[in-house]
Amino acid sequence: MAGNSFGQNFRITTAGESHGPGNVVILDGVPAGIPLAVEDLLPDLERRRPGQSKLVTQRQEGDIPEILSGIFEGKTTGTSIAILIRNQDQRSKDYSNILDKYRPGHADFTFDAKYGFRDYRGGGRSSARETNVRVAAGAVAKKVLKEIWGINILSYVKQVGNIVADIAKPEEVTLEQVETTPVRCPEPESAAKMIALIDEVRKDQDSIGGVSEVVATGVPAGWGEPVFDKLRADLGKAMFSIPAVLGVEFGEGFAAALKRGSENNDVFVMGKDGRVETETNRHGGMLGGISSGMPIVFRCVIKPTSSLSKAQRTVNQAGEEVEIQTKGRHDPCLLPRFVPIAEAMTAVTLLDHALRQESASIVIRSNS
Amino acid sequence: MAGNSFGQNFRITTAGESHGPGNVVILDGVPAGIPLAVEDLLPDLERRRPGQSKLVTQRQEGDIPEILSGIFEGKTTGTSIAILIRNQDQRSKDYSNILDKYRPGHADFTFDAKYGFRDYRGGGRSSARETNVRVAAGAVAKKVLKEIWGINILSYVKQVGNIVADIAKPEEVTLEQVETTPVRCPEPESAAKMIALIDEVRKDQDSIGGVSEVVATGVPAGWGEPVFDKLRADLGKAMFSIPAVLGVEFGEGFAAALKRGSENNDVFVMGKDGRVETETNRHGGMLGGISSGMPIVFRCVIKPTSSLSKAQRTVNQAGEEVEIQTKGRHDPCLLPRFVPIAEAMTAVTLLDHALRQESASIVIRSNS
Amino acid sequence: MAGNSFGQNFRITTAGESHGPGNVVILDGVPAGIPLAVEDLLPDLERRRPGQSKLVTQRQEGDIPEILSGIFEGKTTGTSIAILIRNQDQRSKDYSNILDKYRPGHADFTFDAKYGFRDYRGGGRSSARETNVRVAAGAVAKKVLKEIWGINILSYVKQVGNIVADIAKPEEVTLEQVETTPVRCPEPESAAKMIALIDEVRKDQDSIGGVSEVVATGVPAGWGEPVFDKLRADLGKAMFSIPAVLGVEFGEGFAAALKRGSENNDVFVMGKDGRVETETNRHGGMLGGISSGMPIVFRCVIKPTSSLSKAQRTVNQAGEEVEIQTKGRHDPCLLPRFVPIAEAMTAVTLLDHALRQESASIVIRSNS
Amino acid sequence: MAGNSFGQNFRITTAGESHGPGNVVILDGVPAGIPLAVEDLLPDLERRRPGQSKLVTQRQEGDIPEILSGIFEGKTTGTSIAILIRNQDQRSKDYSNILDKYRPGHADFTFDAKYGFRDYRGGGRSSARETNVRVAAGAVAKKVLKEIWGINILSYVKQVGNIVADIAKPEEVTLEQVETTPVRCPEPESAAKMIALIDEVRKDQDSIGGVSEVVATGVPAGWGEPVFDKLRADLGKAMFSIPAVLGVEFGEGFAAALKRGSENNDVFVMGKDGRVETETNRHGGMLGGISSGMPIVFRCVIKPTSSLSKAQRTVNQAGEEVEIQTKGRHDPCLLPRFVPIAEAMTAVTLLDHALRQESASIVIRSNS
Repeated sequence: MAGNSFGQNFRITTAGESHGPGNVVILDGVPAGIPLAVEDLLPDLERRRPGQSKLVTQRQEGDIPEILSGIFEGKTTGTSIAILIRNQDQRSKDYSNILDKYRPGHADFTFDAKYGFRDYRGGGRSSARETNVRVAAGAVAKKVLKEIWGINILSYVKQVGNIVADIAKPEEVTLEQVETTPVRCPEPESAAKMIALIDEVRKDQDSIGGVSEVVATGVPAGWGEPVFDKLRADLGKAMFSIPAVLGVEFGEGFAAALKRGSENNDVFVMGKDGRVETETNRHGGMLGGISSGMPIVFRCVIKPTSSLSKAQRTVNQAGEEVEIQTKGRHDPCLLPRFVPIAEAMTAVTLLDHALRQESASIVIRSNS
Repeated sequence: MAGNSFGQNFRITTAGESHGPGNVVILDGVPAGIPLAVEDLLPDLERRRPGQSKLVTQRQEGDIPEILSGIFEGKTTGTSIAILIRNQDQRSKDYSNILDKYRPGHADFTFDAKYGFRDYRGGGRSSARETNVRVAAGAVAKKVLKEIWGINILSYVKQVGNIVADIAKPEEVTLEQVETTPVRCPEPESAAKMIALIDEVRKDQDSIGGVSEVVATGVPAGWGEPVFDKLRADLGKAMFSIPAVLGVEFGEGFAAALKRGSENNDVFVMGKDGRVETETNRHGGMLGGISSGMPIVFRCVIKPTSSLSKAQRTVNQAGEEVEIQTKGRHDPCLLPRFVPIAEAMTAVTLLDHALRQESASIVIRSNS
Repeated sequence: MAGNSFGQNFRITTAGESHGPGNVVILDGVPAGIPLAVEDLLPDLERRRPGQSKLVTQRQEGDIPEILSGIFEGKTTGTSIAILIRNQDQRSKDYSNILDKYRPGHADFTFDAKYGFRDYRGGGRSSARETNVRVAAGAVAKKVLKEIWGINILSYVKQVGNIVADIAKPEEVTLEQVETTPVRCPEPESAAKMIALIDEVRKDQDSIGGVSEVVATGVPAGWGEPVFDKLRADLGKAMFSIPAVLGVEFGEGFAAALKRGSENNDVFVMGKDGRVETETNRHGGMLGGISSGMPIVFRCVIKPTSSLSKAQRTVNQAGEEVEIQTKGRHDPCLLPRFVPIAEAMTAVTLLDHALRQESASIVIRSNS
Repeated sequence: MAGNSFGQNFRITTAGESHGPGNVVILDGVPAGIPLAVEDLLPDLERRRPGQSKLVTQRQEGDIPEILSGIFEGKTTGTSIAILIRNQDQRSKDYSNILDKYRPGHADFTFDAKYGFRDYRGGGRSSARETNVRVAAGAVAKKVLKEIWGINILSYVKQVGNIVADIAKPEEVTLEQVETTPVRCPEPESAAKMIALIDEVRKDQDSIGGVSEVVATGVPAGWGEPVFDKLRADLGKAMFSIPAVLGVEFGEGFAAALKRGSENNDVFVMGKDGRVETETNRHGGMLGGISSGMPIVFRCVIKPTSSLSKAQRTVNQAGEEVEIQTKGRHDPCLLPRFVPIAEAMTAVTLLDHALRQESASIVIRSNS
């Protein structure tokens, strides 16, 4: 299959392009009996929506989801849930000038190489437009994780260009703090600087990269599989499946290269509630790929938007060297809109492993 | 399923623990008609082997693989290939003192949380011992990738502690350069410093982290799937499935946070052979998750070995605070032995996507 | 996952209930470059449609499919194709009297046992309404199989009650012959008797079972996998996944119990075109689970419709013994509408194996 | 992948040929904490073993299983279990005369068509030798199903040639009754006739087909998924994946073609223990593909052994018409040895669905 599904026990399957009729996701494996309505999907879709602030693209997409199945009398039935989000503001003429030119940093050339041709309107299937149904699916997964296990998932912007926010306790950041500014950095001083920087690059017809941090609290110890499907491995895949992600690091991450074992190991201690904890959380909440009960913490680096209003050199399908300007409405910085997508894919991954652990732990459960 | 398989069209499934009878891998999907013998597996197993130099653990594991199926008259038959590597030097008494203590940085506690009990001998299934059959499977995948597509995969050590090798052209590094020193850093001056540093931490009964770089050359444009199974996503998962990997970055990686789009985009140009290329390779060989034909380049950070001869604080199963010393023979630095494992998982991932592209590109192939 | 997907390299995933907004299918793995339009889906949907003749239910469902993705300028793009069919004539009041009663032969009780509650409107997800998107997906698969390999798939009614049509050469039956009568039996004399019998049971407020035969011609030798994913095994699963199928038999089928090996084996001979053939086709086109190049022939038995206008005894959710009459509009015989569904699932299965063989046969192809 | 795996939450993956070093199975998803030892595997392997009586082939295979992983201190650890059975009595010279001839009814020709060549020694991967590790895996699955849910799975021979045993209550047949005679028919009079018939065909250098019935008791209501992964569909696939199976029917099976709905529906009633039951079991224990709590009952038809000592006509690889005699030691009737294989695949399928239901029923369980 062509990679349009994610997950094992909880699986999402998507379809849709930026300029087709719409995007669809089918959720397979949502447990029966969870209260769910369209309203549960709206807040995160609003956070992903273009046009929400001047920091992001001014395209209007109007993400109105329709739940087509799997809900009866306000509850999930246990059967597959389909969600449709139709495309509205498509303006395909914006893209006509790039019909046969390969946009630098985009998938135009690689799609041509793979399929022999491509839907050139706004990137087709390679457009980040497809992430709207991931966010819808993530909202469902978040709800289930919250209802059954009391799990919270939150992401925020930690770095834009050279502005790095100092967030000492990721597990204490609140959604309210994140949503205070349009840049979604919970540390106000850094947020102000980030906003100024994004404004500057936007005026330069340029773009800027950054780093997002993701935190999941309340995940019980014991989720994740020991070898290939380590929780870390599946979260890593989930993040790398999001457009523009060039790097992912858990806990101490790349800084661990500089550390000695005696500095890097987290000492086990007994927590106040009688549960095993670690004194520090350099391991990022997973040991041997299995959750430790500590907060899960990781970071993703997002490259600067590839579409620029500035002229760039490239080649066309005929192999001629040409100039290209992508005149559409682009995000000067992808980070603010990345945040809900990262949360969504984290939720989708955690729910999958939650369900996998249910089938792994039969005997333990029956004994306890 | 409990995560013991990796891949779709080409899939490996493994079993085995550090102190059981042995480890097994079943390879499903190897094309028929490829010459293959046990000898093809030995070089990479030798590179992964403990005891190969004083930089690594002095355990003797004697990785002698036996091919149990799938080969007839020297060629792959197209049916599943099973490879068995028996364990030899097990010394389970080395581990008896840690029976009920949770080793910091290890999966002892998380296995107990997941399964209700654990095989405490050397980590059981969580031990990196299981990677020997990954390396065997990777050797098969490498051979197929080389025979059919002419692909080369190479990894080397780029950083140990604060020693960072400057490798300007990753795609020009040779296996010979890598294998010149036991630390597997192809830049001799850095290699010498790394060796000295590892020697120092070993004497301190400590360990040290580092970074490995992986390069795949010859991968044609068009491999990888557009959404969830981006080549980047599957390579990322492959790397995060290896013990001790805390971060993965492709191309420019985390440095892209600091970049503007106009600095970060790679300009398309026509190559000497009439194929589309990029002038630079900050994208790391994949665009939109699909290979661009440029070298695939990424890096992994490996944490310092968690097992230390030094005493560390921890708790035991009864919840008492205790001290622990893991007296066995440990790697002071995991990097030199990580290199063949990274190559193996890269090969396994690429072969899977190679086969997936065969089924995706039927019409294109028949038209060309 | 909850079993809403079918296939490996070509995979369909569905959602939808009889009385929700509609049904959706996502097709993953359709090769790029195949001409495809909504018109390709209509003929088979029309054949499955209720109300097409007096032999079938008089419900009006108006199966108008909308393709939401995966097509650009009239061709498949290689990315996932979503098809939506909205429900129209729902009349949920017809079902209100069965809210808490378990209809005999239906999944009401088993859904309650599985999920704790159920969508009682027309069976919800257990209704055969979901097969409309299977037929849409099958129409796509048929088109691809025809375009690339010249394969034809045809089913027809072989038996209704005790009326058995004698079809000596299944591979010579034509779609025109099948569509001549509303009962879809290509042998006119038997067709007339079947129509009379169905009319009789309808007047008795009863229903009747039967057998459908399926034939695929043009399938090349070599499709199917040797062990678990035998082509026979996947076709068998495909058929048993269709509501009301109680048995499947290939080639000689259950009659083989009576045979000696010397009577049952098909002798290999050289065909006129220089290809290996068998003199007879008691093996039904597959040997060792792999296609032999001979026509694939199998039969399915479909039970009589469980919904009866007649009163039946049953129990309700409270455990009381009650009477039930399902007053809706039911098929007196499922066979005529089963035919396009069987063809669809056959096509979906064959396309999956076609694509699997592309990735298995790389070396062979490059050598030939 | 090439079809060497079966199952989702519980998955088995196999490798091995008739004349290679041995066969291996990896079991993924066995819950932790189940007592398990090699002794648990021996009885069913003994029942499958060649040479156990004069009714079956006199080959000696000596199926001694070795458990390579996944057990610690007598209990399953939750990690993957590998089981190896080495081949012993191979006598490859028996097969040398068929090197380039296609045996009628065998996969020789289809393997050549698929892979370009084949392991001609005893059928290689297409040999039923591979079922020995299925039986080992099935023994594990049976043990888990028995320990956790109290499920019993039993198969027996119902028909050989024209001798049909009348078994009124399949759910009351005992293992002891089945094992009383070497033909494994629990009805003594029919068993005697079957034995005589098999003896007769053996003397004629011929073989004979038959039907096996499988019964699973104790399966709770609610297992199986509503659409593609109906329990019936997965059991059907499981059976069709076994060599020589040409047909599968559940409950009333093909006889349902003759029935009216009013005759075929099973009436729901309240059982003595206050649970919902059906008065009759024509549905075979599943409704809508989901278990009803009634005994699961189905039948498989097995063709007569294709290998005959008698001369048969065929062609060779060069396309010449030739004669073939397969002089080896063959089963005159496959049925007696089919019984434990059918039980094994039934157990593997049921355990998969048992685990799937654990992850589907979280909310229901927590509410009850």
